[in-house]
Amino acid sequence: MISSAGTGTECVAAVDVGGTTMKGGLVGRDGTVLYDERRPTPQSGVINAISRFVGDLARPRDGLVPRAVGLAVPGLVTPTHAVFSAAFGWRDVPVASFTDVDLPVALGHDVRSAGEAELAYGVGGDDVLFLPIGTGIAGAVVLSGGLNGGLYGGADGWAGQIGHIPVWPEGLACRCGQRGCLAAYSSGGAVAARCGSPSAADVVRRVAEGDPPAVQVWDEAVEALALALATYTLLLDPATVVIGGGVSLAGDTLLVPLRERLGARLAFRRPPDVVASGLGIRAGLLGAGLLGWRAVPAG
Amino acid sequence: MISSAGTGTECVAAVDVGGTTMKGGLVGRDGTVLYDERRPTPQSGVINAISRFVGDLARPRDGLVPRAVGLAVPGLVTPTHAVFSAAFGWRDVPVASFTDVDLPVALGHDVRSAGEAELAYGVGGDDVLFLPIGTGIAGAVVLSGGLNGGLYGGADGWAGQIGHIPVWPEGLACRCGQRGCLAAYSSGGAVAARCGSPSAADVVRRVAEGDPPAVQVWDEAVEALALALATYTLLLDPATVVIGGGVSLAGDTLLVPLRERLGARLAFRRPPDVVASGLGIRAGLLGAGLLGWRAVPAG
Repeated sequence: MISSAGTGTECVAAVDVGGTTMKGGLVGRDGTVLYDERRPTPQSGVINAISRFVGDLARPRDGLVPRAVGLAVPGLVTPTHAVFSAAFGWRDVPVASFTDVDLPVALGHDVRSAGEAELAYGVGGDDVLFLPIGTGIAGAVVLSGGLNGGLYGGADGWAGQIGHIPVWPEGLACRCGQRGCLAAYSSGGAVAARCGSPSAADVVRRVAEGDPPAVQVWDEAVEALALALATYTLLLDPATVVIGGGVSLAGDTLLVPLRERLGARLAFRRPPDVVASGLGIRAGLLGAGLLGWRAVPAG
Repeated sequence: MISSAGTGTECVAAVDVGGTTMKGGLVGRDGTVLYDERRPTPQSGVINAISRFVGDLARPRDGLVPRAVGLAVPGLVTPTHAVFSAAFGWRDVPVASFTDVDLPVALGHDVRSAGEAELAYGVGGDDVLFLPIGTGIAGAVVLSGGLNGGLYGGADGWAGQIGHIPVWPEGLACRCGQRGCLAAYSSGGAVAARCGSPSAADVVRRVAEGDPPAVQVWDEAVEALALALATYTLLLDPATVVIGGGVSLAGDTLLVPLRERLGARLAFRRPPDVVASGLGIRAGLLGAGLLGWRAVPAG
């Protein structure tokens, strides 16, 4: 792990910007997390908060020498701009606005990056849907079998917005401006808000206790997920659906009814396997790390 | 077009089995249709009717020498079996049941084959959804950009069942056994049945005349399609959606409101182009022809 210049251990500064928490750290080339730190995502001034976090991480410390920055953000993202985020309300933010450190910076989509980390270090496999459920929901479309490997980005790299497919078209308003989106029912943020709970974890606790309002909201969250996964399965025939993010920590409270309801929504074909992520909530940070390593100049 | 053996013009016998009509013909290597014939799809005894049709087509005639058979059928299909079709109610029919001719036979999915023909001879392009709407609906997922070209079949080749994604989950019962499927609203068969019309073309005529029941059914058909395409767009970011099949002959009666409603369902991204097929209803026969040519032994 010592660089050829002998100046310390090479790493990248990685930040995965979630709706509630920014997960930052220093990540080695093999995916080892050498340092990690979490900061709350502020309600306003997110871009400045990201910039300060990246600046702090990018400073050499304890023999760790950051060589690049990997920044994973939600919404619609290109390599040069964070185009849109329903969670943060930003539009067309250039990568340079996120940090002024003197290192190469790679900007990427949080979920696609986490999906690549899941493929590289976690469950792996072909024909996988990686679906992290945190404060919000998107979904990395991981298609490998027969199509030369890798994640499918679509015509302009904007594939994978499963959080905003309409599951009940005349349903709840979503903060993205649409109606009836999966995220309006099944995201951690939606589940918590609909129950008046501080977090999705608190809702899961109330469900375990049989609290009727929590049970009803959780029930709709699971049914909406089953509908979205039925649609995904019919369109793309995945072998495996990997649920990640904070909500996946609900474990069998989520997975058992989800498998049952997905099966019930599919009349003429068997459902794919539905499993929890092998990386849990580390997938986002490791994905940002992969982004950063891609930005390190060769040689 | 004269074979090296000098025995006549080489071709393949091709049959595309639709819910209402079987389109058969003899197709040259370059996609030229050398002979074509249509027969109604019977309500019962479909497999025998297919077998008679293939047998008649496979007989040499007018200097045309069939070298193989290409058979395109709906539902879930593997190279060896027609696994399931909601339209015909069959399960696990082996390819040998469809014909006893002494030629190589290639079995394939009607819509995926037609999508390959659309790519080869029609609109072409990358990141395309080819969506033929006939008596029923499926959808070929055509992904080319960045993933080495070709159609994506999923883990077991069963991708592309867009006709049975739930657009209104508590909606109309579909003959597939599920509820609220796209096909229950937008297929030619559903549109005609809901209007008490003999065909979708008759419904389109009534819509043009402003007939209220027809307008209402057509309106729901277009809205259901817009919902399904919004979902597809959010998941897979296509550059172009190509509508084919008999219902695409409705032209602007379909395309103009569909484009408008798809745009209305997408709050934060622009919709893909939505165009009519370049091959019209010939795509199915040409797709079956491509299947057949793949079965011709080399040399």
